[in-house]
Amino acid sequence: VEQGDFEGARSLVRPLHPADIADLFELAPQDMRRPIASAIAGLLDGDVLAEMNEWVREELIEALAPHEVAEIATQLDTDDAVAIIEELEEEDQRAVLRAMEPDDRAAIEEALSYPEESAGRLMQRDLIAVPEHWTVGHVLDYLRKNEDLTTDFWEIYVVDHAHHPIGTCKLSWVMRTPRAIGISDVMQREQTLIPVDMDQEEVALRFQKYALISAAVTDPSGRLVGMITVDDIVHIIQEEAGEDILKLSGAGDGDINEPILETVKVRLSWLVVNLGTAVLAASVVGLFQGTISGLVVLAVLMPIVSGMGGNAGTQTMAVAVRALALNQLTSSNTARMILREFRIAIANGLCLGALIGIAVYLIYGNRDLGIVICLAMIINNIIAGLAGILVPVSLDKAGADPAVSSAVFVTTATDVMGFFSFLGLATLWGLHG
Amino acid sequence: VEQGDFEGARSLVRPLHPADIADLFELAPQDMRRPIASAIAGLLDGDVLAEMNEWVREELIEALAPHEVAEIATQLDTDDAVAIIEELEEEDQRAVLRAMEPDDRAAIEEALSYPEESAGRLMQRDLIAVPEHWTVGHVLDYLRKNEDLTTDFWEIYVVDHAHHPIGTCKLSWVMRTPRAIGISDVMQREQTLIPVDMDQEEVALRFQKYALISAAVTDPSGRLVGMITVDDIVHIIQEEAGEDILKLSGAGDGDINEPILETVKVRLSWLVVNLGTAVLAASVVGLFQGTISGLVVLAVLMPIVSGMGGNAGTQTMAVAVRALALNQLTSSNTARMILREFRIAIANGLCLGALIGIAVYLIYGNRDLGIVICLAMIINNIIAGLAGILVPVSLDKAGADPAVSSAVFVTTATDVMGFFSFLGLATLWGLHG
Repeated sequence: VEQGDFEGARSLVRPLHPADIADLFELAPQDMRRPIASAIAGLLDGDVLAEMNEWVREELIEALAPHEVAEIATQLDTDDAVAIIEELEEEDQRAVLRAMEPDDRAAIEEALSYPEESAGRLMQRDLIAVPEHWTVGHVLDYLRKNEDLTTDFWEIYVVDHAHHPIGTCKLSWVMRTPRAIGISDVMQREQTLIPVDMDQEEVALRFQKYALISAAVTDPSGRLVGMITVDDIVHIIQEEAGEDILKLSGAGDGDINEPILETVKVRLSWLVVNLGTAVLAASVVGLFQGTISGLVVLAVLMPIVSGMGGNAGTQTMAVAVRALALNQLTSSNTARMILREFRIAIANGLCLGALIGIAVYLIYGNRDLGIVICLAMIINNIIAGLAGILVPVSLDKAGADPAVSSAVFVTTATDVMGFFSFLGLATLWGLHG
Repeated sequence: VEQGDFEGARSLVRPLHPADIADLFELAPQDMRRPIASAIAGLLDGDVLAEMNEWVREELIEALAPHEVAEIATQLDTDDAVAIIEELEEEDQRAVLRAMEPDDRAAIEEALSYPEESAGRLMQRDLIAVPEHWTVGHVLDYLRKNEDLTTDFWEIYVVDHAHHPIGTCKLSWVMRTPRAIGISDVMQREQTLIPVDMDQEEVALRFQKYALISAAVTDPSGRLVGMITVDDIVHIIQEEAGEDILKLSGAGDGDINEPILETVKVRLSWLVVNLGTAVLAASVVGLFQGTISGLVVLAVLMPIVSGMGGNAGTQTMAVAVRALALNQLTSSNTARMILREFRIAIANGLCLGALIGIAVYLIYGNRDLGIVICLAMIINNIIAGLAGILVPVSLDKAGADPAVSSAVFVTTATDVMGFFSFLGLATLWGLHG
């Protein structure tokens, strides 16, 4: 398409949804993005940028002057504008803000004053709040007469004289109610309020748990300062839930558009940590060189014991990390969960130990070797089960993110104990060739 | 709380949101759940059951008579009722359906006729559809006068005479428009329609991509048959995104309320598959017993090479599985992604190889051993990078779920090649004590 036929490209792209244009852009090879951008310049508006991957967007925005970025940001809801501006270098941020209208600038600056990943950054300031003494008719007239109100709302907030939210009203309720009825008779008084400094992960959990479409955001004094809608939360749920798999493997945020050097840095630092633990595990093997040289088949079998422990530990850990992320694993049921994993570990260990023990006995005709590997397998499965739950739970208690560092501790435990139990038992048993 | 004080328990639980009551229930030990249920019987309505974990719910429902289940299901939206009924044994299903009103029964039976995890199971049949010639005033009067319409809607669908959806109208637009304006002037004609047999994962991706609040569901002839709202999708996004971590580790659906025997079965079958691959990797070590008995330190170092390959492979695999799940990895950029991972693998391999090579040389004073482990590390990192992306991509192309079986193939590749490259090179090099 991109052989000079700019008009053709534009007409192909015009009917698409902003999210699709953003996707097209991300799929294009890096050196084609700038030419495509200039070809479809008029169509690359704020909505497309807001949908775009941060790295791809950065590339594009770097090519723009501050006043152009400011213009784009002005078209957007505060939350989307903040998402674009918060990623700029501080200097560029200031230049863009200077180029904006005072009103818009104040809104963005206020949002930027809240901590990253907090409700304050996510919320939009445009919302519909009405006093409690209004009727449905008042509300409809107010909405029809004031042209500059937002159209992006799903619920109306009812506030008292101090601007504290006292109720929420679904639009469907308002529409099904005669004009003369008071809004306070239609609204729901139980509402889920979001403090402005709440972490976005917590916000996402509330939205999910209570099936919210929108929620009022309040400042520390309880005043209504903004609103979060579910469409902004859906992205966060998707990200936060999918993130754990990347964190557990140490793959950073796993963004395929990230510059390669950045990616190598993140992944390599994780691998170096793991190299340390691998050396630790190897040094355990080193302690038993004498036993191994007496019976080399121990070296053949030892990776089975450590590897199976690693697999079992990873299973338990994945379940624990997920349960912690969903707030399903709390202090009230931790003890029960540990017992549960302990039982599973014993069941798995007995089955796997018997299986491998009998196989080893049949293949090598060495009964003692079969018993040793069976016992080591049982021990290492128990270690795996306990480490798989205790490590994430302890990290969570200590305020660390269990998804980030659990894997190192768990696999270190299963490697070290796998080698130690198998080679140690073989030494005690006096196994030799 | 549960020392006979039923009234106290009831008054504590009454003000809670159904989702919180369901949570309370799940956190309670298994043998306490029945007594709690009978204590707060009147409060355990359909909404609470709909929020409950499937295993916990099953326990409760088993104790109920079919007509009681039928009564609960009747209070719910079709989608929630279906979610409860679809999990029952076939015989119980029939008994419950027989006890329902013919209307409700027909709706549920129709939903059950769609494949599991399809849009047809998720949708609710109650929605607001209006003809295109109506004005905003008509719509408002229709909503106010018909008492039995649903209140659970966020958008209105405009349909033609054949009941095909031709436009969608946010409630906020309707409310901000004077009564005399035609609804077809307010509606948005571009709409995302969901075919009734679409997989729920695909539905979730559409909701997320286009930031939808609700979407019309159409049958194969294009008629409007139902509506899906975002609150039902949020659960699916959360589940599908979080599921991959559990699938990769072979932990089934990782449900902490699953009966323990069920859990052992799922996890053990995965571990047995892995035992097979571990034995395969061990047999590679077996080929080199002669080399190892000549230089036992090879047995000490070999787990480092295989383990580091496993870690690097898992990183790449996690990124690939995520990108596939989010539709970010498509045929148009697969080649580019493979090249990207290949480069990262070489960079990681060179750094880790140099690090471990020098360390081995310094510790054991054996230059050749250092070179061999360095080369093996580079080779295995490349294998890891390629397997990490090629395995999930090929599984996806073959129509399999890459999250489920990628890990076995990738770690088998890195284990086998880790041992083979290290011990093979050592043999070729003629390393001995």
